[in-house]
Amino acid sequence: MSDTVTIQPLTAQAFAPFGDVLDCAGDPDKIINQGLCGRFHDRAQMDFGPDGRAGISLFKAQPRALPLTLDLMERHPDGSQAFIPMSEHPFLVITAPDDGGKPGAPLAFLTSPGQGINFHRGTWHGVLTPLHAPGLFAVIDRIGNTPNLEEHTLTPHYTVQF
Amino acid sequence: MSDTVTIQPLTAQAFAPFGDVLDCAGDPDKIINQGLCGRFHDRAQMDFGPDGRAGISLFKAQPRALPLTLDLMERHPDGSQAFIPMSEHPFLVITAPDDGGKPGAPLAFLTSPGQGINFHRGTWHGVLTPLHAPGLFAVIDRIGNTPNLEEHTLTPHYTVQF
Repeated sequence: MSDTVTIQPLTAQAFAPFGDVLDCAGDPDKIINQGLCGRFHDRAQMDFGPDGRAGISLFKAQPRALPLTLDLMERHPDGSQAFIPMSEHPFLVITAPDDGGKPGAPLAFLTSPGQGINFHRGTWHGVLTPLHAPGLFAVIDRIGNTPNLEEHTLTPHYTVQF
Repeated sequence: MSDTVTIQPLTAQAFAPFGDVLDCAGDPDKIINQGLCGRFHDRAQMDFGPDGRAGISLFKAQPRALPLTLDLMERHPDGSQAFIPMSEHPFLVITAPDDGGKPGAPLAFLTSPGQGINFHRGTWHGVLTPLHAPGLFAVIDRIGNTPNLEEHTLTPHYTVQF
Protein backbone atom coordinates (compact mmCIF):
# COMPACT_ATOMS: atom_id res chain seq x y z
CA MET A 1 0.00 0.00 0.00
CA SER A 2 1.35 3.42 -0.95
CA ASP A 3 1.82 6.35 1.38
CA THR A 4 -0.71 9.13 1.00
CA VAL A 5 0.01 12.81 0.36
CA THR A 6 -2.95 14.92 1.49
CA ILE A 7 -3.68 17.98 -0.63
CA GLN A 8 -3.68 21.28 1.28
CA PRO A 9 -4.60 24.82 0.18
CA LEU A 10 -1.70 26.81 -1.28
CA THR A 11 -0.51 29.61 0.99
CA ALA A 12 2.56 31.81 0.66
CA GLN A 13 3.72 30.78 4.12
CA ALA A 14 3.49 27.03 3.59
CA PHE A 15 5.06 27.31 0.13
CA ALA A 16 7.88 29.67 1.14
CA PRO A 17 10.58 26.96 1.49
CA PHE A 18 9.96 25.93 -2.12
CA GLY A 19 9.10 29.08 -4.01
CA ASP A 20 6.80 32.05 -4.50
CA VAL A 21 3.03 32.25 -4.75
CA LEU A 22 2.16 34.66 -7.57
CA ASP A 23 -1.16 36.30 -6.77
CA CYS A 24 -2.71 39.66 -5.88
CA ALA A 25 -2.44 39.23 -2.11
CA GLY A 26 -2.28 42.52 -0.22
CA ASP A 27 -2.42 46.00 -1.66
CA PRO A 28 -0.98 46.73 -5.09
CA ASP A 29 2.54 48.20 -5.04
CA LYS A 30 1.51 50.84 -7.54
CA ILE A 31 -1.62 52.10 -9.28
CA ILE A 32 -0.98 52.68 -12.99
CA ASN A 33 -2.80 53.30 -16.26
CA GLN A 34 -4.80 56.38 -15.25
CA GLY A 35 -5.96 54.69 -12.04
CA LEU A 36 -7.43 51.64 -13.75
CA CYS A 37 -4.80 49.01 -12.91
CA GLY A 38 -2.96 47.74 -9.82
CA ARG A 39 0.60 46.50 -10.21
CA PHE A 40 1.74 43.77 -7.79
CA HIS A 41 5.41 44.22 -8.46
CA ASP A 42 8.22 41.72 -9.00
CA ARG A 43 6.76 38.79 -7.10
CA ALA A 44 9.06 35.95 -8.24
CA GLN A 45 12.57 35.21 -7.07
CA MET A 46 14.00 34.18 -10.41
CA ASP A 47 17.50 32.80 -10.86
CA PHE A 48 18.83 31.53 -14.17
CA GLY A 49 22.49 31.19 -13.22
CA PRO A 50 25.43 32.89 -14.90
CA ASP A 51 24.89 31.29 -18.33
CA GLY A 52 21.10 31.29 -18.62
CA ARG A 53 18.40 33.78 -19.49
CA ALA A 54 14.66 34.03 -18.90
CA GLY A 55 12.33 32.64 -21.53
CA ILE A 56 8.57 32.38 -21.89
CA SER A 57 7.26 29.04 -23.09
CA LEU A 58 3.74 27.64 -23.17
CA PHE A 59 2.88 24.25 -21.69
CA LYS A 60 -0.27 22.43 -22.79
CA ALA A 61 -0.79 19.59 -20.31
CA GLN A 62 -3.36 16.85 -20.09
CA PRO A 63 -5.65 17.28 -17.06
CA ARG A 64 -5.20 14.62 -14.39
CA ALA A 65 -7.72 12.91 -12.12
CA LEU A 66 -7.53 12.30 -8.39
CA PRO A 67 -6.35 10.27 -6.61
CA LEU A 68 -3.06 10.79 -8.45
CA THR A 69 -0.17 8.35 -8.51
CA LEU A 70 3.05 10.25 -7.83
CA ASP A 71 5.99 8.19 -9.04
CA LEU A 72 8.37 10.81 -10.42
CA MET A 73 9.80 14.08 -9.19
CA GLU A 74 12.23 16.41 -10.90
CA ARG A 75 14.30 19.49 -10.28
CA HIS A 76 16.10 22.07 -12.40
CA PRO A 77 19.55 22.65 -10.89
CA ASP A 78 20.33 25.66 -13.09
CA GLY A 79 17.18 27.72 -12.83
CA SER A 80 13.87 28.71 -11.28
CA GLN A 81 10.60 27.81 -13.02
CA ALA A 82 7.32 29.73 -12.84
CA PHE A 83 3.91 28.35 -13.84
CA ILE A 84 1.22 30.88 -14.76
CA PRO A 85 -2.20 29.32 -15.43
CA MET A 86 -3.93 30.83 -18.48
CA SER A 87 -7.35 29.88 -17.08
CA GLU A 88 -9.11 30.43 -13.77
CA HIS A 89 -8.95 26.76 -12.76
CA PRO A 90 -7.02 25.63 -9.70
CA PHE A 91 -4.14 23.23 -10.30
CA LEU A 92 -2.03 20.92 -8.20
CA VAL A 93 1.46 21.91 -7.03
CA ILE A 94 3.57 19.04 -5.74
CA THR A 95 6.96 19.68 -4.17
CA ALA A 96 9.40 18.18 -1.68
CA PRO A 97 12.37 19.26 0.41
CA ASP A 98 15.75 17.91 -0.63
CA ASP A 99 16.95 14.97 1.41
CA GLY A 100 20.60 14.35 0.58
CA GLY A 101 20.23 14.68 -3.17
CA LYS A 102 16.82 13.05 -3.49
CA PRO A 103 13.29 14.29 -2.72
CA GLY A 104 12.11 13.96 0.87
CA ALA A 105 8.45 13.57 1.87
CA PRO A 106 6.28 15.27 -0.80
CA LEU A 107 3.73 18.00 -0.16
CA ALA A 108 0.74 18.73 -2.39
CA PHE A 109 -0.98 22.11 -2.66
CA LEU A 110 -4.11 23.16 -4.51
CA THR A 111 -4.03 26.68 -5.94
CA SER A 112 -6.95 29.08 -5.82
CA PRO A 113 -8.13 30.72 -9.05
CA GLY A 114 -5.78 33.59 -9.85
CA GLN A 115 -2.66 32.02 -8.36
CA GLY A 116 0.51 31.02 -10.15
CA ILE A 117 3.72 29.77 -8.57
CA ASN A 118 7.47 30.04 -9.04
CA PHE A 119 9.70 27.17 -7.96
CA HIS A 120 13.05 28.39 -6.71
CA ARG A 121 16.15 27.08 -8.48
CA GLY A 122 16.86 23.45 -7.62
CA THR A 123 13.53 22.71 -5.89
CA TRP A 124 12.12 19.19 -6.22
CA HIS A 125 8.65 19.17 -7.78
CA GLY A 126 6.13 16.98 -9.54
CA VAL A 127 5.36 17.51 -13.19
CA LEU A 128 2.78 20.15 -14.11
CA THR A 129 -0.59 18.85 -12.90
CA PRO A 130 -3.72 20.61 -14.10
CA LEU A 131 -7.00 19.10 -12.93
CA HIS A 132 -9.14 20.79 -15.60
CA ALA A 133 -8.94 21.56 -19.32
CA PRO A 134 -7.45 23.50 -21.06
CA GLY A 135 -4.30 22.73 -19.01
CA LEU A 136 -2.62 25.77 -20.52
CA PHE A 137 0.22 27.57 -18.72
CA ALA A 138 2.86 30.15 -19.46
CA VAL A 139 6.16 28.95 -18.06
CA ILE A 140 9.01 31.32 -17.30
CA ASP A 141 12.17 29.30 -16.95
CA ARG A 142 15.79 29.12 -17.94
CA ILE A 143 16.90 29.08 -21.54
CA GLY A 144 20.45 27.75 -21.72
CA ASN A 145 22.76 25.07 -22.99
CA THR A 146 22.72 22.58 -20.11
CA PRO A 147 20.17 19.77 -19.63
CA ASN A 148 19.02 21.51 -16.41
CA LEU A 149 16.98 18.44 -15.37
CA GLU A 150 17.33 15.81 -12.66
CA GLU A 151 14.63 13.18 -12.36
CA HIS A 152 14.02 10.86 -9.44
CA THR A 153 11.72 7.84 -9.57
CA LEU A 154 9.79 7.31 -6.34
CA THR A 155 9.80 3.67 -5.21
CA PRO A 156 7.32 2.98 -3.76
CA HIS A 157 5.10 5.63 -5.28
CA TYR A 158 2.78 7.98 -3.37
CA THR A 159 -0.95 8.54 -3.75
CA VAL A 160 -2.04 12.20 -3.80
CA GLN A 161 -5.62 12.91 -2.73
CA PHE A 162 -7.86 15.16 -0.64
CA MET B 1 -15.36 63.64 -34.66
CA SER B 2 -12.59 61.22 -33.74
CA ASP B 3 -10.87 58.82 -36.07
CA THR B 4 -11.87 55.18 -35.68
CA VAL B 5 -9.57 52.23 -35.07
CA THR B 6 -11.27 49.01 -36.16
CA ILE B 7 -10.52 45.96 -34.05
CA GLN B 8 -9.05 43.01 -35.95
CA PRO B 9 -8.26 39.44 -34.86
CA LEU B 10 -4.77 38.98 -33.44
CA THR B 11 -2.47 37.01 -35.73
CA ALA B 12 1.26 36.44 -35.43
CA GLN B 13 1.80 37.85 -38.90
CA ALA B 14 -0.09 41.10 -38.36
CA PHE B 15 1.48 41.56 -34.92
CA ALA B 16 5.05 40.73 -35.97
CA PRO B 17 6.24 44.36 -36.34
CA PHE B 18 5.25 45.00 -32.72
CA GLY B 19 5.92 41.81 -30.82
CA ASP B 20 5.22 38.13 -30.33
CA VAL B 21 1.95 36.25 -30.04
CA LEU B 22 2.29 33.72 -27.21
CA ASP B 23 0.06 30.76 -27.97
CA CYS B 24 0.17 27.07 -28.87
CA ALA B 25 0.18 27.55 -32.63
CA GLY B 26 1.78 24.68 -34.51
CA ASP B 27 3.25 21.51 -33.09
CA PRO B 28 4.91 21.53 -29.68
CA ASP B 29 8.69 21.79 -29.77
CA LYS B 30 9.00 18.96 -27.27
CA ILE B 31 6.79 16.44 -25.48
CA ILE B 32 7.65 16.23 -21.78
CA ASN B 33 6.34 14.85 -18.49
CA GLN B 34 5.93 11.22 -19.50
CA GLY B 35 4.11 12.19 -22.69
CA LEU B 36 1.42 14.27 -20.97
CA CYS B 37 2.59 17.80 -21.83
CA GLY B 38 3.62 19.74 -24.93
CA ARG B 39 6.25 22.46 -24.58
CA PHE B 40 6.02 25.40 -26.99
CA HIS B 41 9.50 26.65 -26.39
CA ASP B 42 10.88 30.15 -25.86
CA ARG B 43 8.23 32.11 -27.73
CA ALA B 44 9.03 35.67 -26.62
CA GLN B 45 11.81 37.92 -27.82
CA MET B 46 12.65 39.49 -24.49
CA ASP B 47 15.17 42.30 -24.07
CA PHE B 48 15.82 44.05 -20.77
CA GLY B 49 18.92 45.98 -21.76
CA PRO B 50 22.32 45.80 -20.10
CA ASP B 51 21.16 46.99 -16.67
CA GLY B 52 17.78 45.28 -16.31
CA ARG B 53 16.52 41.86 -15.44
CA ALA B 54 13.28 39.94 -16.00
CA GLY B 55 10.58 40.15 -13.33
CA ILE B 56 7.11 38.67 -12.96
CA SER B 57 4.45 41.08 -11.72
CA LEU B 58 0.68 40.74 -11.61
CA PHE B 59 -1.63 43.36 -13.06
CA LYS B 60 -5.25 43.59 -11.94
CA ALA B 61 -7.02 45.88 -14.40
CA GLN B 62 -10.55 47.17 -14.59
CA PRO B 63 -12.43 45.74 -17.61
CA ARG B 64 -13.25 48.30 -20.27
CA ALA B 65 -16.28 48.68 -22.49
CA LEU B 66 -16.44 49.31 -26.23
CA PRO B 67 -16.32 51.66 -28.01
CA LEU B 68 -13.12 52.67 -26.21
CA THR B 69 -11.65 56.14 -26.18
CA LEU B 70 -7.92 55.91 -26.90
CA ASP B 71 -6.22 59.07 -25.70
CA LEU B 72 -2.90 57.80 -24.35
CA MET B 73 -0.15 55.54 -25.60
CA GLU B 74 3.08 54.56 -23.92
CA ARG B 75 6.32 52.75 -24.57
CA HIS B 76 9.10 51.26 -22.49
CA PRO B 77 12.42 52.28 -24.03
CA ASP B 78 14.50 49.96 -21.84
CA GLY B 79 12.62 46.68 -22.07
CA SER B 80 10.09 44.32 -23.59
CA GLN B 81 6.80 43.66 -21.83
CA ALA B 82 4.71 40.47 -21.97
CA PHE B 83 1.06 40.17 -20.95
CA ILE B 84 -0.19 36.70 -20.01
CA PRO B 85 -3.93 36.54 -19.30
CA MET B 86 -4.77 34.43 -16.24
CA SER B 87 -8.26 33.73 -17.58
CA GLU B 88 -9.63 32.44 -20.87
CA HIS B 89 -11.15 35.77 -21.88
CA PRO B 90 -9.97 37.66 -24.95
CA PHE B 91 -8.46 41.09 -24.38
CA LEU B 92 -7.63 44.09 -26.49
CA VAL B 93 -4.10 44.79 -27.71
CA ILE B 94 -3.51 48.29 -29.02
CA THR B 95 -0.22 49.25 -30.63
CA ALA B 96 1.27 51.67 -33.13
CA PRO B 97 4.38 52.06 -35.25
CA ASP B 98 6.80 54.78 -34.23
CA ASP B 99 6.54 57.95 -36.29
CA GLY B 100 9.52 60.15 -35.50
CA GLY B 101 9.35 59.66 -31.73
CA LYS B 102 5.58 59.59 -31.39
CA PRO B 103 2.99 56.91 -32.12
CA GLY B 104 1.75 56.66 -35.70
CA ALA B 105 -1.70 55.36 -36.66
CA PRO B 106 -2.85 52.88 -33.98
CA LEU B 107 -3.89 49.29 -34.60
CA ALA B 108 -6.21 47.30 -32.33
CA PHE B 109 -6.21 43.50 -32.06
CA LEU B 110 -8.52 41.16 -30.17
CA THR B 111 -6.84 38.05 -28.77
CA SER B 112 -8.38 34.59 -28.85
CA PRO B 113 -8.67 32.62 -25.62
CA GLY B 114 -5.27 31.11 -24.84
CA GLN B 115 -3.21 33.92 -26.37
CA GLY B 116 -0.80 36.23 -24.60
CA ILE B 117 1.48 38.78 -26.21
CA ASN B 118 4.95 40.25 -25.78
CA PHE B 119 5.63 43.81 -26.89
CA HIS B 120 9.17 44.23 -28.17
CA ARG B 121 11.34 46.78 -26.43
CA GLY B 122 10.34 50.34 -27.26
CA THR B 123 7.02 49.51 -28.97
CA TRP B 124 4.19 52.00 -28.61
CA HIS B 125 1.10 50.47 -27.03
CA GLY B 126 -2.12 51.29 -25.23
CA VAL B 127 -2.54 50.47 -21.57
CA LEU B 128 -3.64 46.96 -20.64
CA THR B 129 -7.25 46.59 -21.81
CA PRO B 130 -9.24 43.62 -20.58
CA LEU B 131 -12.86 43.49 -21.72
CA HIS B 132 -13.99 41.03 -19.02
CA ALA B 133 -13.42 40.42 -15.31
CA PRO B 134 -11.20 39.38 -13.59
CA GLY B 135 -8.74 41.49 -15.67
CA LEU B 136 -5.86 39.54 -14.18
CA PHE B 137 -2.55 39.21 -16.02
CA ALA B 138 0.99 38.09 -15.32
CA VAL B 139 3.38 40.65 -16.74
CA ILE B 140 6.99 39.82 -17.55
CA ASP B 141 8.90 43.03 -17.92
CA ARG B 142 12.05 44.84 -16.96
CA ILE B 143 13.06 45.38 -13.37
CA GLY B 144 15.63 48.17 -13.21
CA ASN B 145 16.50 51.61 -11.96
CA THR B 146 15.32 53.80 -14.83
CA PRO B 147 11.76 55.16 -15.30
CA ASN B 148 11.48 53.08 -18.52
CA LEU B 149 8.29 54.89 -19.51
CA GLU B 150 7.38 57.39 -22.22
CA GLU B 151 3.79 58.52 -22.48
CA HIS B 152 2.16 60.30 -25.40
CA THR B 153 -1.25 61.97 -25.24
CA LEU B 154 -3.24 61.58 -28.44
CA THR B 155 -4.88 64.80 -29.55
CA PRO B 156 -7.42 64.34 -30.98
CA HIS B 157 -8.21 60.95 -29.46
CA TYR B 158 -9.23 57.82 -31.35
CA THR B 159 -12.31 55.61 -30.94
CA VAL B 160 -11.62 51.86 -30.89
CA GLN B 161 -14.50 49.58 -31.91
CA PHE B 162 -15.52 46.57 -33.99
